[in-house]
Amino acid sequence: MTKEQLVSQIKSKKSFLCIGLDVDLDKIPPHLLATEDPIFEFNKAIIDATHELAVAYKPNTAFYEAYGIKGWKSLEKTIDYLNKNYPEVFSIADAKRGDIGNTSTRYAQAFFQDMSFDSVTVAPYMGSDSVEPFLAFKDKFTIMLALTSNKGGLDFQLLEDQQETTLYEKVIETSLSWNNSEQLMYVVGATRPEFFRKIRKIVPDHFLLVPGVGAQGGDLQGVCKFGINKDIGLLVNSSRGIIYASAAADFAEKAREKALELQKEMAEILIENGI
Amino acid sequence: MTKEQLVSQIKSKKSFLCIGLDVDLDKIPPHLLATEDPIFEFNKAIIDATHELAVAYKPNTAFYEAYGIKGWKSLEKTIDYLNKNYPEVFSIADAKRGDIGNTSTRYAQAFFQDMSFDSVTVAPYMGSDSVEPFLAFKDKFTIMLALTSNKGGLDFQLLEDQQETTLYEKVIETSLSWNNSEQLMYVVGATRPEFFRKIRKIVPDHFLLVPGVGAQGGDLQGVCKFGINKDIGLLVNSSRGIIYASAAADFAEKAREKALELQKEMAEILIENGI
Repeated sequence: MTKEQLVSQIKSKKSFLCIGLDVDLDKIPPHLLATEDPIFEFNKAIIDATHELAVAYKPNTAFYEAYGIKGWKSLEKTIDYLNKNYPEVFSIADAKRGDIGNTSTRYAQAFFQDMSFDSVTVAPYMGSDSVEPFLAFKDKFTIMLALTSNKGGLDFQLLEDQQETTLYEKVIETSLSWNNSEQLMYVVGATRPEFFRKIRKIVPDHFLLVPGVGAQGGDLQGVCKFGINKDIGLLVNSSRGIIYASAAADFAEKAREKALELQKEMAEILIENGI
Repeated sequence: MTKEQLVSQIKSKKSFLCIGLDVDLDKIPPHLLATEDPIFEFNKAIIDATHELAVAYKPNTAFYEAYGIKGWKSLEKTIDYLNKNYPEVFSIADAKRGDIGNTSTRYAQAFFQDMSFDSVTVAPYMGSDSVEPFLAFKDKFTIMLALTSNKGGLDFQLLEDQQETTLYEKVIETSLSWNNSEQLMYVVGATRPEFFRKIRKIVPDHFLLVPGVGAQGGDLQGVCKFGINKDIGLLVNSSRGIIYASAAADFAEKAREKALELQKEMAEILIENGI
């Protein structure tokens, strides 16, 4: 998918909502457990119920790997279903991968080619040659961790160097010199709205993937105030707040209601920003 | 596995060699391609030929994920074979994972419980709550990236803060305050022997996993000079230099020869160090 296609989808749906498909067999409605592939059936129902309100879906690979080969089958079926039925939707493999050059290429092949995801999340610690192999894939996006929403995000990401540049800023700045850096996006947690202004000075044009709205307590208005750019430039993710809105037979309907609340708020923000 | 068991294995085999099982279908002997699971057959032959010389095996998950569900099956068969036939051997899932708390727990379950690996590699960027979930598993080790052997390792890991502490030092120091930090090991590239003295001042007792000997040009003697401690404290990895020593029918035999060269060098180093 190209950036233009993503932006056009956001404008037509009046939404920059990403839904995290972090499926836990202990939390899904019990009636699904009798099906052959409960995780896939759950995802399918959530996607069918929310695809008009969300522009992106983000399965976190940990939730699939935890179920071994069965889990990988559910992940493959989910991305295949999404690509076949809703090809306009942007897909994110939230995998946080990263390794030395030839090894990162393997991960990129797994997610971009074998499973046809539009994007994958990566960790920056190993630097340029751990991320550039992902960027070599045309019309695919590489979403690099910058400032994460969790408590431990503060352990290293805010360390300052001798020029008082924090690590997350250095990570973003440095990545702009890498090959095909226009295909980068960055993960910036919604729990840190005060940092969006700084980040937009470094990357005015790149998309930011923003987790942490909902269960983690992030603030959508705060994020948008400084995070939005001329192309919108934000994908705001909610996982548990939407997909576990109900644990009963009406789970998909309730998920749609929660998604609709966020979409309406986003539509207003888009109008306020003249988009 | 406990640390004592690992140390005892090292002493009895007179080796601290780890063999990286980074299997590429384009590089393995053609006659294996006709078998039902060429990757597993390759690993099985390598393990059978080298298990007296190596104390650890380290499949890098990227090489398995790249082949989708088939690749995961090969990985599961490999670790099952290893655990069943050579239970004294230390196994490392080189996965470089890391995510927010409950999600990291999923990765830990996948590698420690479902697949029964003794250890897994993790990335430090997301901090304490991305690593501690791995450390919660008893008699399992979490091997955190510290100073990696690749070119991009220099992008961020050597950044200095205002007290002139580099990021990789800060990462190691900080991790010592985490729950169950005695179950940590650290990845330190063999291409950076000059840093081992500094690292041993911070973590005199922890094991270091040292990739980069062989194909990447690292120096075993240099690493051992400052890296070795009273328990040896090193697992030195070689992947391509051993497993691709020959692409013909004699690949396992040639792998054994290469492993034997390294084991002999290690045995001498152990004697020199009075171990």
